[in-house]
Amino acid sequence: MFREQNLTMLTDFYEITMANGYLESGLGDKTAYFDMFFRRVPDGGGFAIMAGIQQVCDYLESLKFTDRDIEYLREKKLFSEQFLEYLRNFEFKCDVWAVPEGTPIFPHEPIITVRGPVMQAQFIETMLLLIVNHQSLVATKANRIVRAAQGRPVMEFGTRRAHGIASALHGARAAYIGGCAGTACAKAAEDYGFPTMGTMAHSWVQMFSDEYEAFKKYAEIYPDNCTLLVDTFNVLKSGVPAAIKVFKEMKPSHMAIRIDSGDITYLTQESRKMLDDAGLQDCQITISNSLDEYIIREVLIEGAKVDAFGVGERLITAKSEPVFGGVYKLAGLEVDGEIIPKIKISENVEKITNPGFKTLYRLYDKENGKALADIITLDGEVIPEDDEYEIFDPRAIWKKKKVKNFTAKNLRVQIFKEGKLVYDNPTVDEIKEYCKEQVNTLWPQMLRFENPQTYYVDLSKDLYDMKQRLINEHHED
Amino acid sequence: MFREQNLTMLTDFYEITMANGYLESGLGDKTAYFDMFFRRVPDGGGFAIMAGIQQVCDYLESLKFTDRDIEYLREKKLFSEQFLEYLRNFEFKCDVWAVPEGTPIFPHEPIITVRGPVMQAQFIETMLLLIVNHQSLVATKANRIVRAAQGRPVMEFGTRRAHGIASALHGARAAYIGGCAGTACAKAAEDYGFPTMGTMAHSWVQMFSDEYEAFKKYAEIYPDNCTLLVDTFNVLKSGVPAAIKVFKEMKPSHMAIRIDSGDITYLTQESRKMLDDAGLQDCQITISNSLDEYIIREVLIEGAKVDAFGVGERLITAKSEPVFGGVYKLAGLEVDGEIIPKIKISENVEKITNPGFKTLYRLYDKENGKALADIITLDGEVIPEDDEYEIFDPRAIWKKKKVKNFTAKNLRVQIFKEGKLVYDNPTVDEIKEYCKEQVNTLWPQMLRFENPQTYYVDLSKDLYDMKQRLINEHHED
Repeated sequence: MFREQNLTMLTDFYEITMANGYLESGLGDKTAYFDMFFRRVPDGGGFAIMAGIQQVCDYLESLKFTDRDIEYLREKKLFSEQFLEYLRNFEFKCDVWAVPEGTPIFPHEPIITVRGPVMQAQFIETMLLLIVNHQSLVATKANRIVRAAQGRPVMEFGTRRAHGIASALHGARAAYIGGCAGTACAKAAEDYGFPTMGTMAHSWVQMFSDEYEAFKKYAEIYPDNCTLLVDTFNVLKSGVPAAIKVFKEMKPSHMAIRIDSGDITYLTQESRKMLDDAGLQDCQITISNSLDEYIIREVLIEGAKVDAFGVGERLITAKSEPVFGGVYKLAGLEVDGEIIPKIKISENVEKITNPGFKTLYRLYDKENGKALADIITLDGEVIPEDDEYEIFDPRAIWKKKKVKNFTAKNLRVQIFKEGKLVYDNPTVDEIKEYCKEQVNTLWPQMLRFENPQTYYVDLSKDLYDMKQRLINEHHED
Repeated sequence: MFREQNLTMLTDFYEITMANGYLESGLGDKTAYFDMFFRRVPDGGGFAIMAGIQQVCDYLESLKFTDRDIEYLREKKLFSEQFLEYLRNFEFKCDVWAVPEGTPIFPHEPIITVRGPVMQAQFIETMLLLIVNHQSLVATKANRIVRAAQGRPVMEFGTRRAHGIASALHGARAAYIGGCAGTACAKAAEDYGFPTMGTMAHSWVQMFSDEYEAFKKYAEIYPDNCTLLVDTFNVLKSGVPAAIKVFKEMKPSHMAIRIDSGDITYLTQESRKMLDDAGLQDCQITISNSLDEYIIREVLIEGAKVDAFGVGERLITAKSEPVFGGVYKLAGLEVDGEIIPKIKISENVEKITNPGFKTLYRLYDKENGKALADIITLDGEVIPEDDEYEIFDPRAIWKKKKVKNFTAKNLRVQIFKEGKLVYDNPTVDEIKEYCKEQVNTLWPQMLRFENPQTYYVDLSKDLYDMKQRLINEHHED
C-alpha cells in the first residue's frame, strides 16, 4: 500500500520548514548522520523485535512531490522558490543502514542510521519512525504472546479494533513476524500469503432456528474446515452438545470448537471432557476473548485445555503499552570531509545520545551460539574475535567483563546506497524464521515477561571516550 | 486514501466464509438488520464522540472484488463458483443509517444500522468497526484533552507514534473533530485543509554552532512564524536567554518558545517571567512532552504558564485505553415481509443485545437546550413532544421519570439507500463545529474525567417489552 499512494507529504510539517531552512542557510547539502534508536522496551520486556524495513524501503523508493504538494506548500508563503524547485526535482541520495527485520533489538542501539544531505536525512525522520515504531511495537507484543502460548498456534484476530487500515495490514504482518501462525484479515492473508481461516460469528448461529441447524449447515459447506462457535447461548448446555451431534453425524475432516466468552479454564476443561467422552479426541478447542500473554500464561498454568488462540485487540493495538518510543537524533555532521560528532545533552543521563557514525556488533558464544553482548563502536573499529575483548557497562564503567571465543556479527545491513535500494528484502516467512532463530540465541532469563535479565549493550572504549569528551565540553560552556 | 486503494478484501475472512455459507444455504438474499454499538466509554468517560462516517461512505461506495481477489478466493477451494460469480458482480444494496460525526454517543445505542441482504450486511462488519472504532476512539480522547486545555489550542503532534499511515491521517482527522486546533502532519493538513505549523527539532539547534545562531537563522527565514525550541541544552540558562536575544534583535511578528522536556510548571513560570521582564509579553509558550488530559489539568491547576499544547503519542494512540470496543450484532431478519427480532443472550446482562429494527432519539429541553435523555425505540414509534413522556432505566425499571417541554430529535441520518449514497457528508470544519455545539448540550457533570454522571439511555416501552419476551423465550428453552 506504500507504492499505491504518494506518502511523501506524510511527515511532520517541521521537517519541511527545517529542510527549507537548511537550504536557505547554505547547509542543505551538508552531510549529516542521524540514528534511530529507542530508550525502553514496552511492557518492561527484555528485548524488542525489529520490524518495518520492507515498508521503509518502499517508502524511500517512492519519494516524490506532486504538483499539488508543491502548490500547497507555495500557498503557505513560507518557502523559497529555490526550495520548491528542489522538491520538484527531489532525488533521494542518502545511505541507510538498518538492523534486519526479525532481529531482537535493545535500547540505545542505532537500529537505523541515515547518512546524507541534511535536508533529506532530516526529512525522512517522521515516516521512518512511524513505520518502525508501529511494526516493532506489534512484532514485540506478538512475540510475547506467542511465547506464552508455548507452541500452540496464535492467530491474529484484531482487524476490527486496529487503528485504521495500515494498523490492520502492517499490524498483521508484524504479528506474523513476531510468531503468529496466521491472521483473520483476508487482505493481509492475500497480500502476504499468510494462512487464514474462516469460522463463524454469533450472527451465523442466530440466522438459523437453532445451533444444531446452524452448525449442521456449516459442516455441510465446510467439511474440511469446520470450526463451530459454541457460545451464542450456553457453551456447555447447548453449544458443545450441538457441535458434538453435528461432528458425529457429518464427520468433517477438521473439527474445532471456538469459545469467545466466559471462564476459559472451566469451559475448556469441561468441553474437552464432553468431546473426549463422545470419541472426538481430534476436535480442537480454540479460544478468543480479549487475550494477551498474561491471560494465556494464567489459563495454561490453571490447566485450560486449549489447542489454539485467537488474539485480537490486545495484540493489534499492543494495548498494555501502545507506544514504541523510537526517536531519531543527529549524531554527526561532515565538515571538510571530517565527521564532527554531535550529542544531545540531557539532565537525564539515559537521554544523552551516542555521538558519531557508529556500527553495531552482536557477539555470539562460539560454543553454544548464545548472544553474549552487543557492542556499539565507531565506524571502522574492528572487534578482535581471536582475542579476549573487554566490555564494560557505559552506565557503570567499573563493571568490566572479558569475553573470548566469540564471533562478532555486524548486526546491520546497508539498505540504501547513494539513494538507491541495495538490499534484497527477505520474504515475510524468512523474516519470521529468522526471528525465531534469533530469539533462541537469547538466554531464557531474558525471555521473562517481568523483570527479565538486562542484556549487555556496551560502548567501545573509543566511542565511550568520545562521548565523555563531548559531555565535558558542554558542561564547560 | 480509501478511494485510491481497493480495500474490499480488508475484512475478516469469516465474513467471506459466512457470506458463501448464506448463499449456499439459500439465505443470502434474506434481509437482515445489524446494529453497531459499543458497551463502555474509554477512560471511564461520560460519553464518546462519533467519527468516521465519511470514510465509511468512501469504503461502501468503492466495494469491488478484483480478478486477483476472485482468483485468490478460488484457490482456497472453499467457495462455490456461484458465490465467486456473485462477488465478481457485487453490487452494494443495503440501507445504512448512522449517527452523524461529531455527535456525543453513549453505550448500547445503535450508532449504525445496516439493513440489506444478509450476505452483504454481514460482509461489511469488519471495515465499519475498524473505521468507526478507530476514529471515535481518537475523537473521544481528543475531546477530553481539548477540554482539559480550557480554551488553549491543542495541536496534534503524534504522527511518528501512530499505528501506521491511516492511524496518522485519520487520527489527525478525528483529533480535529474532537477539537484539536490543527496537526503537525503535513499530509493531513494538505488533504483536509487543517492548520499546521512548523517549528524545529533539536537537530536544527545542533546543526549550528550555538543556540543563538540557530535561532537567529530561523528567525531570519520565518519572521512571521517563529517558534524556537529552547530545551536542547538548558531551558533557563541558555535556551530562553538566546531566544530573547534573537526576538529583540529580529522582532518576528509571531514569537513563541517551545519546551519539550522537564518540569512544565516550573519551566513555564520562570520562562514567562524572563520573557515578560524582557518586554516580550507577546511571546507565547508552547509545551509538548507526553501530554494528556490528566497532565494538562494538573499543570494548569499548578499555575503553569502555557499558551498552547502539542499532544503526541497519548492522543494519536489513545494510550490510556487504546481500544474502542464497538461491536456489530444481528438484530432482526425479515421473513415473509415481517421483521423477526433477534437477540444475543449472555449471562452478563450488559451484553444482552437490543433486538429489532430501531430508531434513536435524543430529547432536548426546550428551555435551555440541554440533552435530557436518549430513547431507543422500535422503528416507527413516535415520541409525543407535546405531552408528558415517561422514561425509565432499562436496568432498573422502577426508576421512572416524566419529561415534558422537550423536542425529540431523530439522532440518525440515512447515509445509504438501496446501496446508493444519499448523504451529503459535512466538511471536517462543520463536523468540528457541530461536535462543539453538541458537547455543550451536555450537563457539566457529564464532562468529568472521572466518575461522570451517567446519561439516561432508555428503551421505549415497546422495545423493552419485546426484549423481555425474547429473553423469557430463550430461558424457557
